[in-house]
Amino acid sequence: MTSTVDSAQYRIEHDTMGEVRVPVNALYRAQTQRAVENFPISGKTLERAHIEALARIKKAAATANAELGVLDGEIAQAIAAAADQVASGQYDGDFPIDVFQTGSGTSSNMNTNEVIAELASRALKDSGSGKTVHPNDHVNASQSSNDVFPTSVHVAATSALINDLIPALAYLAESLERKAEEFKEVVKSGRTHLMDATPVTLGQEFGGYAAQVRYGIERIQSSLPRVAEVPLGGTAVGTGINTPAGFPQRVIELLAADTGLPLTEARNHFEAQANRDGLIEASGQLRNIAYSFMKINNDLRWLGSGPNTGLGEIAIPDLQPGSSIMPGKVNPVICEAAIMVSAQVIGNDTTIALSSTNGAFELNVGIPVMAANLLESIRLLANTSRVMADKMIDGIEANVERARFLAEASPSIVTPLNKYIGYENAAKIAKHAVKEGLTIREAVVALGYLERGELTEEQLDTALDVLSMTRPPQAK
Amino acid sequence: MTSTVDSAQYRIEHDTMGEVRVPVNALYRAQTQRAVENFPISGKTLERAHIEALARIKKAAATANAELGVLDGEIAQAIAAAADQVASGQYDGDFPIDVFQTGSGTSSNMNTNEVIAELASRALKDSGSGKTVHPNDHVNASQSSNDVFPTSVHVAATSALINDLIPALAYLAESLERKAEEFKEVVKSGRTHLMDATPVTLGQEFGGYAAQVRYGIERIQSSLPRVAEVPLGGTAVGTGINTPAGFPQRVIELLAADTGLPLTEARNHFEAQANRDGLIEASGQLRNIAYSFMKINNDLRWLGSGPNTGLGEIAIPDLQPGSSIMPGKVNPVICEAAIMVSAQVIGNDTTIALSSTNGAFELNVGIPVMAANLLESIRLLANTSRVMADKMIDGIEANVERARFLAEASPSIVTPLNKYIGYENAAKIAKHAVKEGLTIREAVVALGYLERGELTEEQLDTALDVLSMTRPPQAK
Amino acid sequence: MTSTVDSAQYRIEHDTMGEVRVPVNALYRAQTQRAVENFPISGKTLERAHIEALARIKKAAATANAELGVLDGEIAQAIAAAADQVASGQYDGDFPIDVFQTGSGTSSNMNTNEVIAELASRALKDSGSGKTVHPNDHVNASQSSNDVFPTSVHVAATSALINDLIPALAYLAESLERKAEEFKEVVKSGRTHLMDATPVTLGQEFGGYAAQVRYGIERIQSSLPRVAEVPLGGTAVGTGINTPAGFPQRVIELLAADTGLPLTEARNHFEAQANRDGLIEASGQLRNIAYSFMKINNDLRWLGSGPNTGLGEIAIPDLQPGSSIMPGKVNPVICEAAIMVSAQVIGNDTTIALSSTNGAFELNVGIPVMAANLLESIRLLANTSRVMADKMIDGIEANVERARFLAEASPSIVTPLNKYIGYENAAKIAKHAVKEGLTIREAVVALGYLERGELTEEQLDTALDVLSMTRPPQAK
Amino acid sequence: MTSTVDSAQYRIEHDTMGEVRVPVNALYRAQTQRAVENFPISGKTLERAHIEALARIKKAAATANAELGVLDGEIAQAIAAAADQVASGQYDGDFPIDVFQTGSGTSSNMNTNEVIAELASRALKDSGSGKTVHPNDHVNASQSSNDVFPTSVHVAATSALINDLIPALAYLAESLERKAEEFKEVVKSGRTHLMDATPVTLGQEFGGYAAQVRYGIERIQSSLPRVAEVPLGGTAVGTGINTPAGFPQRVIELLAADTGLPLTEARNHFEAQANRDGLIEASGQLRNIAYSFMKINNDLRWLGSGPNTGLGEIAIPDLQPGSSIMPGKVNPVICEAAIMVSAQVIGNDTTIALSSTNGAFELNVGIPVMAANLLESIRLLANTSRVMADKMIDGIEANVERARFLAEASPSIVTPLNKYIGYENAAKIAKHAVKEGLTIREAVVALGYLERGELTEEQLDTALDVLSMTRPPQAK
Repeated sequence: MTSTVDSAQYRIEHDTMGEVRVPVNALYRAQTQRAVENFPISGKTLERAHIEALARIKKAAATANAELGVLDGEIAQAIAAAADQVASGQYDGDFPIDVFQTGSGTSSNMNTNEVIAELASRALKDSGSGKTVHPNDHVNASQSSNDVFPTSVHVAATSALINDLIPALAYLAESLERKAEEFKEVVKSGRTHLMDATPVTLGQEFGGYAAQVRYGIERIQSSLPRVAEVPLGGTAVGTGINTPAGFPQRVIELLAADTGLPLTEARNHFEAQANRDGLIEASGQLRNIAYSFMKINNDLRWLGSGPNTGLGEIAIPDLQPGSSIMPGKVNPVICEAAIMVSAQVIGNDTTIALSSTNGAFELNVGIPVMAANLLESIRLLANTSRVMADKMIDGIEANVERARFLAEASPSIVTPLNKYIGYENAAKIAKHAVKEGLTIREAVVALGYLERGELTEEQLDTALDVLSMTRPPQAK
Repeated sequence: MTSTVDSAQYRIEHDTMGEVRVPVNALYRAQTQRAVENFPISGKTLERAHIEALARIKKAAATANAELGVLDGEIAQAIAAAADQVASGQYDGDFPIDVFQTGSGTSSNMNTNEVIAELASRALKDSGSGKTVHPNDHVNASQSSNDVFPTSVHVAATSALINDLIPALAYLAESLERKAEEFKEVVKSGRTHLMDATPVTLGQEFGGYAAQVRYGIERIQSSLPRVAEVPLGGTAVGTGINTPAGFPQRVIELLAADTGLPLTEARNHFEAQANRDGLIEASGQLRNIAYSFMKINNDLRWLGSGPNTGLGEIAIPDLQPGSSIMPGKVNPVICEAAIMVSAQVIGNDTTIALSSTNGAFELNVGIPVMAANLLESIRLLANTSRVMADKMIDGIEANVERARFLAEASPSIVTPLNKYIGYENAAKIAKHAVKEGLTIREAVVALGYLERGELTEEQLDTALDVLSMTRPPQAK
Repeated sequence: MTSTVDSAQYRIEHDTMGEVRVPVNALYRAQTQRAVENFPISGKTLERAHIEALARIKKAAATANAELGVLDGEIAQAIAAAADQVASGQYDGDFPIDVFQTGSGTSSNMNTNEVIAELASRALKDSGSGKTVHPNDHVNASQSSNDVFPTSVHVAATSALINDLIPALAYLAESLERKAEEFKEVVKSGRTHLMDATPVTLGQEFGGYAAQVRYGIERIQSSLPRVAEVPLGGTAVGTGINTPAGFPQRVIELLAADTGLPLTEARNHFEAQANRDGLIEASGQLRNIAYSFMKINNDLRWLGSGPNTGLGEIAIPDLQPGSSIMPGKVNPVICEAAIMVSAQVIGNDTTIALSSTNGAFELNVGIPVMAANLLESIRLLANTSRVMADKMIDGIEANVERARFLAEASPSIVTPLNKYIGYENAAKIAKHAVKEGLTIREAVVALGYLERGELTEEQLDTALDVLSMTRPPQAK
Repeated sequence: MTSTVDSAQYRIEHDTMGEVRVPVNALYRAQTQRAVENFPISGKTLERAHIEALARIKKAAATANAELGVLDGEIAQAIAAAADQVASGQYDGDFPIDVFQTGSGTSSNMNTNEVIAELASRALKDSGSGKTVHPNDHVNASQSSNDVFPTSVHVAATSALINDLIPALAYLAESLERKAEEFKEVVKSGRTHLMDATPVTLGQEFGGYAAQVRYGIERIQSSLPRVAEVPLGGTAVGTGINTPAGFPQRVIELLAADTGLPLTEARNHFEAQANRDGLIEASGQLRNIAYSFMKINNDLRWLGSGPNTGLGEIAIPDLQPGSSIMPGKVNPVICEAAIMVSAQVIGNDTTIALSSTNGAFELNVGIPVMAANLLESIRLLANTSRVMADKMIDGIEANVERARFLAEASPSIVTPLNKYIGYENAAKIAKHAVKEGLTIREAVVALGYLERGELTEEQLDTALDVLSMTRPPQAK
């Protein structure tokens, strides 16, 4: 098949299927060009971190191949140098293949092989060497798309989780923890079922949010052993066909050293090529974090609702005019952006998990779409964590007076009276208070509990101190 | 394989695979018993409506077979009579097979064939006829599990949608519409982004809820043509092998008449056996209704939040004590039940849609789980619609004074001033009001708009009438 | 708040919150710039079709406002002309705001207002008019983000569904229908439960795929009435505050005429602003189509599996080398891309539906993420439909001999014998054939059915004609 | 409100809202009866394990309360004894409340309180004690539904994961591992993209399945720390209001001892009451296992497809007749049941995760539906694991000859030649073989590679030994 690029600006490349016209300045060759033409679908290409991971694998493989006698040293060095250039991002424009391509990522693996072969060949030519570098026989030596491409996703994801998302979540948790400390004496009404409950402090609420974010970090960490476990060395079907002895161990050792990541070899290479369960597990943890973000941001925008018809217990920083028609309106826009990010991450998770059904026998063929969604989710959550902290949490202020006013208005502050007069009497007081518009103290008096000596003034004072209701009993 | 029922209380039955021990009083035979033993998984059996649909198909098939000369008239009549008994529900205990069985529902189809064959054979024996009825050769004549079982799901779902869910949704919509009328003059603050917006009436909000429910009915109706389209007549693989000419048309005609449902024959029998897309479409519409229920119930519980620390614009009927520790607390429990139902329906929808991946070539083999989830979802939504209406909506009362108070407190009521003084000046007024704790009217005065003659008193009065802000301009 | 653009290349703009530094050449102003700075999250901006829809709304609104006396005619004309330019796509670079922004899309509505105000003001200045155009008071007159932005999504989606996706699906269906005709005599084994079943023709299978795609078109069409129903005219909260009488009807009439789309006014403006159920419904139908694509592409790649160890009943066109390690391997890459697209559309659907929970009271604040996902899904399915047809379906060839060979090898071709000798005898024959490695004919003979006269040769010949087994009985 | 039970068979009970008619023999009282009447929705009640967990909490609380001086010793002992009876399952019939109830599970907590109070009061009466036990003041002392009910879910889930699911998965893994050993020399064609690839052994495939199941166990274990962490002691809102000092630590210590589970106190009681993220995380891991089951069962049924038109590399045990129309057909029914279970677990997971959105401020109110779905999922997966092992895996046999025949027929066995003649020449051979219907060896000869001395006979023999292609290179 001849390609259909009409431009005069092309050169002829060939592969095992014949000739292809390739843009004259492209570093890539025939197979990349075929894929560009075969998949005019989304316009979306590989994430930056993904291209870097592919390049780093090629570098590690070249080095291991040279050490193990499979590759000429000069060629291996040229490949490693070219791979470093690709890893740095300067040739991302030469990775034009759509995410929606062959499900093994073979096209992108070959794109990497071709670009590196071209760069390495040019360098060898410039250096006066007579050698040329072949995409399959040299750059891809001892490898298959079937182990390289999934490995590249695990490497990119491990890196993004460790280097981007976990620090961003920690940054967010710290911001929340500072507010937990700042608000630790700000007493307010608790709310359960959205209804008035016994008091908490605003600091306790923010402490809960911080803990939830910290647990998100734990969740990621608990999945890392299976994300950082890579199929490299299994080649075509997990048997390691066409690798020299010792290759898997050595190439992963080199890759771990180059990336600084805790990468390990698949304990079972057949499981590792047929399934991408580690990615699904990681995505599941991101989904959990996304739902946590929904909870936190929903709480925050409700706490800040108003200014006059809502709860109004906190003030969220004003960032931009909120309405094109209602003058002066300001909205909790960061909360909304974060909730939309959460919805995206949860949808991405559906895509990733469902892609499991795209596996059969020795290979899953839904890897590129899993990669694109997983790396996007990590990026979105990391960026959102920092935006939340910087543009919202850090600037939140408590409406201390209103918060205490509402705490004292909650009929549930009757609860400490249970121990003196029992649940049923306490219920009578609360109902009477709500019905008559009284405070709990007023209702206690009105119903004669003091008069009859069932409660003393002192007991009542102690019982109705809203701040003390927020203190764990062991701390009293 | 011999079965493993240890009891002395068994009889020996046989099928094409050999002998099986069956409980002595069971109406079913060997294949049912095998399935009981093969699938000790969930303990969940077919929904009542599903058994009825299977029986009605058997009756229609027997009649059509007799008419078309495939079945002896006496046998056909005996089958039809037995099928009526099964349809009525009196033998549901003889349908013990787990939902998680063979994906075609062959076990349940054979269960139906066996029970009806047994009942019909007994009746013929009692009547002195020498004939016996065979599960496959007679009850299943001109049929295959592959057309019967999916047809039974479409029949049961069509019936449940038309006879149960649509009336229940209409019942709910009417309840909401009565409240929309009752509350049509109850002005309150609108809320967008949870923040104070221009006024609406409580009736407008309830009218919106009613419309949303009505649209749910439309959604179901728009999917019915493809739910009511059945594969019956396609037998094993869609070709109609082993049916007499005219069978599909006639059997579906009879079935439609017997059930009173708008059933139609599959336009393409190959699509119709390989896929259950009509069920997925129906489930998608149920998902939409479930999300609608979430919105309505979330709004309602927020509107009723309090009594003292929330929005408190409506009062939801008290149904039960709300807390085992906080005396006097009452919660919006019907809202919560409805939201949990919604979550269940949305999860069921995932199961149903995902089961599409269980189709290959001429058959989908995820039908029993699709059926169980779809029929459960319909039942849950129908029951919840009535519970919502009866136990909550009908008893909701408006807190008229508080609602108007908040409406007038919203700084967004400045909006009508845009046309007199422009958006930017109006924003200054709103910000000044919020900052200084003034009403909009007070802020207008304080900032000198009357004094400077930029606004007249009359303009201001007209502009700040909150009820008139809720009236569509054409009605003014 | 002053903005943080460090460049010397900025100008100062202001809005109701103060001054902002804006890139000197930007057509947008303060609010756009604030949003750019507030939401450094995904790097993803509005889809092209979405910007066009926003611009077309502004044009229609300007015209209606002028007709109804709300806007100066010269200003309205300038707005309309500027909107046309924006609609054409030439200023897309001036729409830099992230998808993950305020959930109402206010930022993007204001971006549109600002760009059009700037273009219109420049044009009026160039024409010597002394007038300037204000983003809120003029471009946004009689509108709110809360009705404009959701309307823009419905307009863009309606257009994409009608003009892009439905034609693309029809194109795919036609390709499949041509193959159904071409393969109508290619008899092959049916497969149910993945196991050998009675015969079908390859044409019947392709006809089933075509029907499934056609039903996808029906599904979209059935949802269109609720997608094409727009909230425009409801302004801030559905009441139509700040619109002149007759505005909603007129602006939608103009918009429908300009776009050629069957747009209608919301029957209930409160439902229409508070919920985006129409978008969820449309997405649900896309999900259904995506699952259909999974089924079709899974079938196709299984039918083409091999060349030597799989089913091998069809040959899928060779598009590119399939493996970087296994020479000569060619894979069903379009099937895989299409399945990955399906997974993406299904994940996008999760995001869209879940965004329903982002609605409260008078507004849903998850609109931008719903828009981005819905428009992407439509685009992906449309492109994939054409790629499937052009690069795969059109070139599929049947392996006629192998298909017939397998059809005749299936033990299920015993099925037509049921009517002569009953199901249980037929089962004995089939089991004997499989066990002894005989054909069904051989097994019939071996078990003495001819000898004993239970079957005649002629009956046997008729019964075992595989092609006739594929013919509906009415056609015999 | 008076209840609506019409029967004469009732007694009058009361609670803080008034009188209720309760079935005369019921152990429960007013609040249970109200809930029965309020929620006629699904007919589904709490899972057995859930009732047991509630009872065990009541026992631990009574003991801790007595130790800490909050409860009379005699009453505490009576509660503990009654709780033991309830835990044993003998009173499950007295737990009639629908799953779809108040979202905090207050109704079920009160149901437990009422039944235990009744049993304990009766026992005290029988023993001659004058004391009676109050549901709130005694059985619920130092507790709230808001900490008890979620704790009960975590306890039941932890128990079911540790005692049921993990052993069942191990049982399944062992079955697979035995087959991996049995099949370790059965060479067969690998398949990637469903296309012929280089060889693997059937044992390697089964070893991969076993590893995948083992990783499922790891996934559960990695989530257990956050599932076994319970909110008990936080009472109404996390502050521990109305508990004596030391209560949380002691009650959890007692509960852990009684159940034998590794339960720990919530590190942050505010996170722990507001969110059920631990349950979502556990469900996410179950989802992963469900997708693993899909992969394994899909592979198995494909490997066993046929008998004559499929892959036919293994034989799956015959369990039941497979078709009501196609005689002799047998289907992979356990695979299908397992795949349907997987779909159910994945749908349940959607319900569970989505229920996160049902949390606000100090409480999630979607707990009962999360519990029902999570406990069902665990039960389904545990039962399915054992059914898979017992009824399928253990009985699988390899079709050794056919497997080897296909392995040798795969053109991908050309791959080892890459190292001698390069990828491009190897591709020519493979293409020539497929085109001309030759074996790879024949194609090598035909294309002259031996003749030209580019390969020796010995190299060819070594290269084309299919079993050796399955051996990791380090083992050569």
